[in-house]
Amino acid sequence: MRYGIAIFPSKLLQDKINSYRKRYDPHYALIPPHITIKDPFEADEAELKEIISYIERVAAEAEPVKIDITKVSSFYPVNNVIYLKVEENSALSALHDQLYSGPLEHEQPYNFVPHLTLGQKFSDEEHSDVLERLKMLDIRHSETIDRFQLLYQLENGSWTVYETFRLKGGSRD
Amino acid sequence: MRYGIAIFPSKLLQDKINSYRKRYDPHYALIPPHITIKDPFEADEAELKEIISYIERVAAEAEPVKIDITKVSSFYPVNNVIYLKVEENSALSALHDQLYSGPLEHEQPYNFVPHLTLGQKFSDEEHSDVLERLKMLDIRHSETIDRFQLLYQLENGSWTVYETFRLKGGSRD
Repeated sequence: MRYGIAIFPSKLLQDKINSYRKRYDPHYALIPPHITIKDPFEADEAELKEIISYIERVAAEAEPVKIDITKVSSFYPVNNVIYLKVEENSALSALHDQLYSGPLEHEQPYNFVPHLTLGQKFSDEEHSDVLERLKMLDIRHSETIDRFQLLYQLENGSWTVYETFRLKGGSRD
Repeated sequence: MRYGIAIFPSKLLQDKINSYRKRYDPHYALIPPHITIKDPFEADEAELKEIISYIERVAAEAEPVKIDITKVSSFYPVNNVIYLKVEENSALSALHDQLYSGPLEHEQPYNFVPHLTLGQKFSDEEHSDVLERLKMLDIRHSETIDRFQLLYQLENGSWTVYETFRLKGGSRD
């Protein structure tokens, strides 16, 4: 099966993001607004067991992560994805790195640029129009992330949550 | 926020069900195929904390649940919902009852009829056509459920997973 690891931000932020995704993101119906912390990878059942034990250990040690969103940005010219940029964040990067280690050591298709997609698959012209418009919005927002999700992909392209991992470092919970 | 509790069956079964939902279920994009074990309810943050502790205790004691699907059925004439019937199942009913007790004591809008929706919002004519056709399929299937999900609803009607609970009864895991 094809798995991925993602963070769902607060409902407040998801609702805000969905108000743009509804118009601009063809993947709107496939998964809620999210920060991808590990790109899709294949695993079988035996591997999955080891992977889950490993992620549990990672989550047990990692502390909740504060994220700061300060602006709208784009991956253009690599691709026409417009997103909310999550500021440089060593805690999030450390989590990402751990989710590419041990039984999760996979090649990384991209550098890790934490983001929340607002829209994608734009034509070049539409991309520059929408980006210019969205860049004028005041979208500053901060929140603390205390969990992340392991998901698998269905045949229709949508994602189902398999397991929730709480960032428990520093607590006795 | 508005919460609900549901079981996602195996990917195999979800893919099968989605092949029908795609055509017949207007809620197709809002949530993966699921068995609702507690209907939507409102809770605030303080209540949520107590609710989660309670569900953790329930899940720690409950054993994985075997489910058997034997036929396609309908809630007609109450409403035009066509579904895969999950056979009478005392373990599942016990779980449902616990999720309507303690801090989760809410009025039950319906009797508990565990099911996986294939389609809904049919006209009467379409309902009887589709039901007749689907009833001829051999959809027998059994599997064991080892987890369930607490979800919350976004403004667009879709559901995001907040927490996964594993049915751990009988194990030391």
